[in-house]
Amino acid sequence: MTGFHTKLNKATTKNNSLLCIGLDPDPNLLPIKDIALFNKEIIDATKDLVCCYKPNLAFYESLGMDGLQALEQTIAYIPSDIPIIGDAKRGDIGSTAHAYAKALFDVWQFDAVTVNPYLGKDSLDPFIDYKEKGVFVLCHTSNPGASDFQELTIQADQNSYALFQHIARKAETWNVHGNISLVVGATYPEQLKLVRDICPDMTILAPGIGAQGGDLKGTIQYGVSNDGAGLIINSSRGIIYASKEKNDFSTMARKAADQLRTNINLYR
Amino acid sequence: MTGFHTKLNKATTKNNSLLCIGLDPDPNLLPIKDIALFNKEIIDATKDLVCCYKPNLAFYESLGMDGLQALEQTIAYIPSDIPIIGDAKRGDIGSTAHAYAKALFDVWQFDAVTVNPYLGKDSLDPFIDYKEKGVFVLCHTSNPGASDFQELTIQADQNSYALFQHIARKAETWNVHGNISLVVGATYPEQLKLVRDICPDMTILAPGIGAQGGDLKGTIQYGVSNDGAGLIINSSRGIIYASKEKNDFSTMARKAADQLRTNINLYR
Repeated sequence: MTGFHTKLNKATTKNNSLLCIGLDPDPNLLPIKDIALFNKEIIDATKDLVCCYKPNLAFYESLGMDGLQALEQTIAYIPSDIPIIGDAKRGDIGSTAHAYAKALFDVWQFDAVTVNPYLGKDSLDPFIDYKEKGVFVLCHTSNPGASDFQELTIQADQNSYALFQHIARKAETWNVHGNISLVVGATYPEQLKLVRDICPDMTILAPGIGAQGGDLKGTIQYGVSNDGAGLIINSSRGIIYASKEKNDFSTMARKAADQLRTNINLYR
Repeated sequence: MTGFHTKLNKATTKNNSLLCIGLDPDPNLLPIKDIALFNKEIIDATKDLVCCYKPNLAFYESLGMDGLQALEQTIAYIPSDIPIIGDAKRGDIGSTAHAYAKALFDVWQFDAVTVNPYLGKDSLDPFIDYKEKGVFVLCHTSNPGASDFQELTIQADQNSYALFQHIARKAETWNVHGNISLVVGATYPEQLKLVRDICPDMTILAPGIGAQGGDLKGTIQYGVSNDGAGLIINSSRGIIYASKEKNDFSTMARKAADQLRTNINLYR
């Protein structure tokens, strides 16, 4: 088992949780201006309720150097026994993908990252080569446009599949170090079931619960692997912006996180 | 015509050039340590030979905050009449894609960016909505793994296409503001021809000339649109690392750029 998965399993067990909180600072929604402080309060309020945190780099990059410094402080602040997934969705040709892997694993020191498979295997290899790190390959995303390309019917190996199923099949064969995981949106439980059939033991990150309206029951029913784990349920806006008031945002975030963790465990 | 395309056409005409230089600082290849200074010397040596510059963000991100500061200085240093394509290959769900578009267009102030279409139309809309900016959609990339998914045969609209052809077809229909362009690797001239058939007037960025071994003649023959333009040929390593000596790297970069510009114009 990879370093990332060992850490994930320990945090899952310790906090009895499949919940991941997305740390996505949106200036239009933030109750306080200081992003590092906001994240610190969210982390303090929820660190015994989660199996991991997932900052999405877009929100930090959109705030320039100040945003990136807040990300640096946030990563440093998260307790070392809770894994951090860098939601970066990177994908580039081999030599450039090396630079992204270095940026995300060596510079930012994420325990795992999300990657986009459109450029093919040589674009993923530099990430997979970090055997102790987790590599979450986008398979079926949570957004409405996911069906535009991911659900196209493709011909491969003398059979027909949806493209996202074919990517799940490839991820399974490419998983020589056991560090590949998949992203399948909680807004598509039927597709999640199809992916779970292809990859019975692979960890699946399911974003889209909360603001995006994902189906919690279906996601857990279809998403957990045989041991009742293998699934990470992410919620971002539904938790961190449960209140937009500066006096109670962390209390309300804890309440929302605790409620969601409980609901997840009910269905496991 | 969008702001980006107007700027691109002016630079193409002024410098009689379809050449784009990729500013990709690789610590293993750089003749001097100071990246901003290296880029400055490359820009000084080549700014009358190019139609645009294209920094790939991966190389800057892999060097942490120092790298990002060097990118900031590089963007500021490029003459304002030469457009800059931010090679970022971003792609995320709608709300997050907004943050990436803001980061790339408002914070970094790129004239155009590259984006990954795997997440579908709502992942591209926040970029396309910047009507004055250029949006280069990855269609068929230059790397060996490009064929893993991009060349799969898909069924759509009661016909069969390769996935990259279908993406070109969609890009054509989504191009309501005239600011969508495509990326098709110069290492795949036959596929470039197929894309040009689908999108006769769209600007195509063709990376892969030089170190990646792309086919210059085929790329130009198949890639230029009817007016002899509509094509941007990118070379990175073949030009900026033409010499690894600190005494002559900028002279040799100019020589390599001039030679490539001349060769491109021979085939136009």
